[in-house]
Amino acid sequence: MKLLENLIDIPSPSGSEFLMRDFLIDYVKKSSPEWSVKPKLVYGGDLQDNLILVFGEPRTAIFAHMDTIGFTVRYQDQLVPIGGPHAETGYELVGRDGMGFIDARLRVDEEHQLFYDFPRAIETGTTLTWKPNLKANAEFIEGPYMDNRLGIYNALKVAETLEDGMIVFSSFEEHGGGSVPMLTRYIHENHPSVKQALISDITWVTEGVEHGKGVAISLRDKNIPRKKFLDRILALADESGVSYQLEVEGGGSSDGREVHHSPYPIDWVFIGAPEDNVHSPNERVHIKDLVAMISLYKFLMEHL
Amino acid sequence: MKLLENLIDIPSPSGSEFLMRDFLIDYVKKSSPEWSVKPKLVYGGDLQDNLILVFGEPRTAIFAHMDTIGFTVRYQDQLVPIGGPHAETGYELVGRDGMGFIDARLRVDEEHQLFYDFPRAIETGTTLTWKPNLKANAEFIEGPYMDNRLGIYNALKVAETLEDGMIVFSSFEEHGGGSVPMLTRYIHENHPSVKQALISDITWVTEGVEHGKGVAISLRDKNIPRKKFLDRILALADESGVSYQLEVEGGGSSDGREVHHSPYPIDWVFIGAPEDNVHSPNERVHIKDLVAMISLYKFLMEHL
Amino acid sequence: MKLLENLIDIPSPSGSEFLMRDFLIDYVKKSSPEWSVKPKLVYGGDLQDNLILVFGEPRTAIFAHMDTIGFTVRYQDQLVPIGGPHAETGYELVGRDGMGFIDARLRVDEEHQLFYDFPRAIETGTTLTWKPNLKANAEFIEGPYMDNRLGIYNALKVAETLEDGMIVFSSFEEHGGGSVPMLTRYIHENHPSVKQALISDITWVTEGVEHGKGVAISLRDKNIPRKKFLDRILALADESGVSYQLEVEGGGSSDGREVHHSPYPIDWVFIGAPEDNVHSPNERVHIKDLVAMISLYKFLMEHL
Repeated sequence: MKLLENLIDIPSPSGSEFLMRDFLIDYVKKSSPEWSVKPKLVYGGDLQDNLILVFGEPRTAIFAHMDTIGFTVRYQDQLVPIGGPHAETGYELVGRDGMGFIDARLRVDEEHQLFYDFPRAIETGTTLTWKPNLKANAEFIEGPYMDNRLGIYNALKVAETLEDGMIVFSSFEEHGGGSVPMLTRYIHENHPSVKQALISDITWVTEGVEHGKGVAISLRDKNIPRKKFLDRILALADESGVSYQLEVEGGGSSDGREVHHSPYPIDWVFIGAPEDNVHSPNERVHIKDLVAMISLYKFLMEHL
Repeated sequence: MKLLENLIDIPSPSGSEFLMRDFLIDYVKKSSPEWSVKPKLVYGGDLQDNLILVFGEPRTAIFAHMDTIGFTVRYQDQLVPIGGPHAETGYELVGRDGMGFIDARLRVDEEHQLFYDFPRAIETGTTLTWKPNLKANAEFIEGPYMDNRLGIYNALKVAETLEDGMIVFSSFEEHGGGSVPMLTRYIHENHPSVKQALISDITWVTEGVEHGKGVAISLRDKNIPRKKFLDRILALADESGVSYQLEVEGGGSSDGREVHHSPYPIDWVFIGAPEDNVHSPNERVHIKDLVAMISLYKFLMEHL
Repeated sequence: MKLLENLIDIPSPSGSEFLMRDFLIDYVKKSSPEWSVKPKLVYGGDLQDNLILVFGEPRTAIFAHMDTIGFTVRYQDQLVPIGGPHAETGYELVGRDGMGFIDARLRVDEEHQLFYDFPRAIETGTTLTWKPNLKANAEFIEGPYMDNRLGIYNALKVAETLEDGMIVFSSFEEHGGGSVPMLTRYIHENHPSVKQALISDITWVTEGVEHGKGVAISLRDKNIPRKKFLDRILALADESGVSYQLEVEGGGSSDGREVHHSPYPIDWVFIGAPEDNVHSPNERVHIKDLVAMISLYKFLMEHL
């Protein structure tokens, strides 16, 4: 929980992932001496604000996006969304501009225009994010940015015992993408043996995917993975004994979209715990599903 | 007709192109000893489910997509479309899941939600496609998946006498693309002399493109080819003596979209016979237009 | 003004940029002996209709798109838009087909369908553009295609004293893009030291960006540049003393979109004078803002 709290405290709306990247570099440097394999850290220069961990001889990459939805201050008290936040009047927003710390409230008018309420004007271009507020009980974890702090958390837990594999912390997922083309190129040019990607991200509770029934394996969303790869994943998931649910959606997408459309031959599948209250400050995930997610990732990273 | 019937019998909705690829590999291996030039077959590994045929010293590539529209089974009796099928209650759908062969009926409710009618539940994630049913008379060929079985058929007919050229059988065209970036990279890295692409696909009968008036040369759809390349194509089309029609649309797209947006310098143009009843089980193409299509492709592949 | 008039006289709707490219090659060859550094011209072959100028040891590339919005003649008197023209009945359109010069009028019906009025039929596939008509007074320049003739003009003015840098004249910006993937690949492979891009283009007058208040630095549009790069740009802009305005939008995009999504690590920011009457024949830009644009580009190209 301490690690998850730390992850949720760090603001990283799309375009400003650098603080999260710095935290992760620091965390991996401190923690990895205890891990089964100490990974190579790749960052800086041509990787912009992204971070890659390389363990042993990788065949499969875990993608976990570091960015979150949020808001950009426009003119006067106007806000422009970053990604697709679920906006309701009264939600608390935090940020920082040249005049100091900001703790504002969101206001949504009848035309769904977005504004902030705060005693002073906030500088144009300032980014605001949901106020951190993590709650947990025996069953659920609830707070802002389960999507994708839990995807990162999953990757860091898998890292502890990972022998051969790659973990890719990406940017811009919530806002149209843009980092994965560069990251897949890096992978292809430097680790051509990596031809499989697991998208470590959080999905939606729906009529077919419920809380507490296991991690969701997405057979498709707006994009469709290759059937041959899905069949291998499902056979291994059965073998693993981990509880999982099948997801089939017509919409929605993830870093998988850009892996799919990249010029490099990397198969992909989205595997993640489901949440409700999507993109609100109260995203909620069942702990059993998170545990199943970590277990399934460990199994797949070993056997794929 | 036997070849076309075989093509239509094989299910290959986007994501599941492998059966069609396997059929084509087999067909080419058996037939090509009779062809003017025996092509090199490239497939497997980094090409995923795609297939490339290389003849002599290629300058131009024919792209023919192997995938079709269809449906994915969601939860209960729900369906999610693959690509943009024209859905009407009563259309017959076939498929196969762990419990065996499926011959179901499509049902569309008032809100345009899609369902199947079948005596038992079909497994989540199963794909369904139009039931094969090819009809032909002296004028027309009619059935499901003229788009793009005829595009494949055209490529295989052109292959018989092709001396220098490339034929690319691609995936995912009906569902947002994703294979062409990889395929153009392969082409650029392995056959940099290929700088021209003909998109062998089927277009729409409209107020300006009619049945029986020849193959359509598309001057634009949602994307616009380079004017300089179009001018060369039109000059050669005139020289060929083949009957053709000019198409100008503001929407629609093809594998040409991804060739256009790829980082590699490959010009493209869509050339194909028109159909009506688009994306229904009764797509209909005039035989004269298909014959013109094959003739124009043969001429262009020689003279471009 | 003579240079700008020349630029506006040349038709170059998306897909037909070659005339503008030829003009620019000619202009640079004639003018560059007077410049601080004579650039290397790169064009032809794999660059299709695009043009790149290389000065000294470049670190930063200016992108200025050569194409404009316009119309394609469909069937009968129908028109299909190229890009997103602001269409009003009566606007004058010019072009040329096999039967000669065309000076037609635009007609928009109640359903926003587009037509031309001209005494004869125009050949299918012919492109039409706004009739050139440049006006200027002490304050404003007004006419068609300020977007992006002024972006080109800016680049050519900066070129006069540029020592180290690159200028990229691109295609297809108004119509969904397609040249920038190829251009960024060229840059990455041939000039890997270029990791920064300034998008030299014209933006909109809005409630937050006014005529005469300086060049606009866009902190975001539909896409979001990296915060770390924006911070450097803003620090340099302050240092430059040039008057500028901050822009924050939720929509709109530019060549920056494709730089952002390319597989190559190139940061980008849109910097341009604002206009009103966007995409009409009467686009209007304040001369002070254009002068500020040129000054800021000169400063940034030196100090970035």
